[in-house]
Amino acid sequence: MDDDRAEPGALAPESLRRRRFMARGAVASLAAAGGAAALPGAVQAATSDNLPPNVPRWMREPGAGFLNPAYGVPSPFEQHVLRKLPDTPPPFPTATRTPLQSLFGTITPNGLFFERHHAGVPPIDPAQHRLMVHGLVERPLLLDMKALLRFPAVSRSHFIECSGNSMAEFKAPGKGSVQDIHGLISGAEWTGVRLADVLAEAGLLPSARWVLAEGADAAAMTRSVPLAKALDDALLVYGQNGEMLRPEQGYPLRLLLPGFEGNMSIKWLRRLKVGDAPFHTREETAKYTDLMPDGTARLFTFPMGVKSVITAPSARQVLEGHGFREITGLAWSGHGRITRVDVSVDGGRHWGAAALDGPVQSRALTRFRFPWVWTGQEAILQSRGVDEGGNVQPTRSALLASDGQNSAYHYNAIQSWQVASNGEVGNVHV
Amino acid sequence: MDDDRAEPGALAPESLRRRRFMARGAVASLAAAGGAAALPGAVQAATSDNLPPNVPRWMREPGAGFLNPAYGVPSPFEQHVLRKLPDTPPPFPTATRTPLQSLFGTITPNGLFFERHHAGVPPIDPAQHRLMVHGLVERPLLLDMKALLRFPAVSRSHFIECSGNSMAEFKAPGKGSVQDIHGLISGAEWTGVRLADVLAEAGLLPSARWVLAEGADAAAMTRSVPLAKALDDALLVYGQNGEMLRPEQGYPLRLLLPGFEGNMSIKWLRRLKVGDAPFHTREETAKYTDLMPDGTARLFTFPMGVKSVITAPSARQVLEGHGFREITGLAWSGHGRITRVDVSVDGGRHWGAAALDGPVQSRALTRFRFPWVWTGQEAILQSRGVDEGGNVQPTRSALLASDGQNSAYHYNAIQSWQVASNGEVGNVHV
Repeated sequence: MDDDRAEPGALAPESLRRRRFMARGAVASLAAAGGAAALPGAVQAATSDNLPPNVPRWMREPGAGFLNPAYGVPSPFEQHVLRKLPDTPPPFPTATRTPLQSLFGTITPNGLFFERHHAGVPPIDPAQHRLMVHGLVERPLLLDMKALLRFPAVSRSHFIECSGNSMAEFKAPGKGSVQDIHGLISGAEWTGVRLADVLAEAGLLPSARWVLAEGADAAAMTRSVPLAKALDDALLVYGQNGEMLRPEQGYPLRLLLPGFEGNMSIKWLRRLKVGDAPFHTREETAKYTDLMPDGTARLFTFPMGVKSVITAPSARQVLEGHGFREITGLAWSGHGRITRVDVSVDGGRHWGAAALDGPVQSRALTRFRFPWVWTGQEAILQSRGVDEGGNVQPTRSALLASDGQNSAYHYNAIQSWQVASNGEVGNVHV
Repeated sequence: MDDDRAEPGALAPESLRRRRFMARGAVASLAAAGGAAALPGAVQAATSDNLPPNVPRWMREPGAGFLNPAYGVPSPFEQHVLRKLPDTPPPFPTATRTPLQSLFGTITPNGLFFERHHAGVPPIDPAQHRLMVHGLVERPLLLDMKALLRFPAVSRSHFIECSGNSMAEFKAPGKGSVQDIHGLISGAEWTGVRLADVLAEAGLLPSARWVLAEGADAAAMTRSVPLAKALDDALLVYGQNGEMLRPEQGYPLRLLLPGFEGNMSIKWLRRLKVGDAPFHTREETAKYTDLMPDGTARLFTFPMGVKSVITAPSARQVLEGHGFREITGLAWSGHGRITRVDVSVDGGRHWGAAALDGPVQSRALTRFRFPWVWTGQEAILQSRGVDEGGNVQPTRSALLASDGQNSAYHYNAIQSWQVASNGEVGNVHV
């Protein structure tokens, strides 16, 4: 199948869609070579010996009654697809990570959406929950969930990424999976109220410039939000992928600032105070600032930069058998829509445009796909995202040249996965 | 707030987006009238007595460690949001229904996606599962899941609706909720392989016209699929909302025929046989045909007609308090994109265009929204979907005039919800 090998740089999505992905005759050769034995998990020719396949035992008797009828759960065969906890022991839980290597499309199931919290998950009774809006407003407000649910609503798909995602890569290549390294990113369809509508009900005073958002957890998480963002696309969300927010995602109410660092999308939202200047809370001064090589620290670096990562093949996976496989991954940008993702299989010497699943949405996860035929050679797989603002995902050396190695946040460099000749995939810095 | 009442027919989405949804001064009047007592669940003026709100108990101590860290679950306060089983006793389970009245946006969480099966849920081991492709093909194939996962993939959002959804409405208005009446419709982002790609691998013979699809359940569910559909947008899906299919949705492989009656999207797909004519299986002759008033039966009525339903307010709900509320619901069509949804609050005398959440996708659930101020008058709420083919959702009398009352499938008439002056909402046929 060497003749069918993808030539990076020579492939465009349109041609790929029309192109046969397996060489004509591959099936026949496979059968001659012993079928599945030659190409693990691949196509067998159907013959009189295996046609029709044996009737499996689950066709011989009716299935169980409804499995988990009221609220379904995954197949027992999928019990390895889980969020991963950090090694940090209780009572200091910090985060769980999304199993990017096992997921498809752009939706992260709510049960697998990454978590990050600073004082555990508060067990909020929604009937008791209130949102206060005060400060530089004409009419301070106190809203309960029933009031918020009566505002006009909107549903939109957006990613949330912890600004500390991938932070260990500033120092050295992590040994774990893509989940371990980059798993603090997830995507969902959110439903809620435009923050602009709520602020209009309160009536902004002319001096209003910033909004303090406070969570109802024991950390009383607080961040300052520029008024321009609050009036642009900020939402107060109560719905996530069709149902109410999960407890660990801010049930019953979360501020959602599309594209901004995840920490600012305050969970368990209880208070919005309008001011004329940023509030300089702990989480935007001592934390969530970016230490530069010259010793100064950047404050208020809100949007997450354009970024992408190949989720399969990725570190800790082992390629089974040569031949065609699709390289797939996710791209996103805090600045708007992804317009292009380039993929390289030779460490960045040649690049080809990946296909993007549509509709591509602003500040949302975008699934990309790139065809590849692996013939057993060593390879270095990379992806490079580009957004509608013309921002291009940087190489690691370019990122370090500008930001140094002391930052912990906003790591968005190109990820390199090294494929060994035995099929093992690992993380490398090139 | 009478002056702010929505005038059906006079409202367009653009004007609504710019319009304050509560009359200016409403908050002050509310405070004077006793705040929440006057408008249950609505806005209170914040005063020195309630500002800041009492610190709730969940802010006084750290939250629990990670709640269901590996695979999260909904809040204990959401335990009423469940699929509903039929009254039919075991061992003959038939279906569960999606709680449309409690959901947001367009994604149905996998745990709440409606189910319909004819012989229970087979406990399939994906390592043992095979798909056979045979009949009028050059190269019969036997594919395991690893082979299918190596084909080029695509992710797309589509609804699935049981063609028997809402069937009781042919006879008389159901007494239940929107879940009971219309709950055999759900939507998801699906990931899988284009059926056209698999058929190309097998190589279609010139006489190929139809494809038989067979499921690996004990019912061996079989349906005939026109080749044109198979080569157009049909998918072999393994992913649903980001993760592997749930067992009750066909794990590990399902045929997805976007827009066609749900029964044809064969679950637990094990066999595709290409033929030159339909196969006339039980499920397309004795069942899933449409008995007409003249005694003939329509066969092969595949696409689900254009349809919509208001999910809130809907039957069994009770409106709490007068004032602004958003009328919201879902629209879909088996023929393509929804282009318009009209809403009436006076039983169809006047209509206004609802706002549609974007991006609107073909053969996918579309969320619509329409502003309404309820002042305590009786009202009859209706929605009417229109698709890109110009198909208009019929009134019930128009549907019965053409199809009679003997059909059980493809009921897509306009739903009328009657709001009583005490706020109770019920199902009526007008």
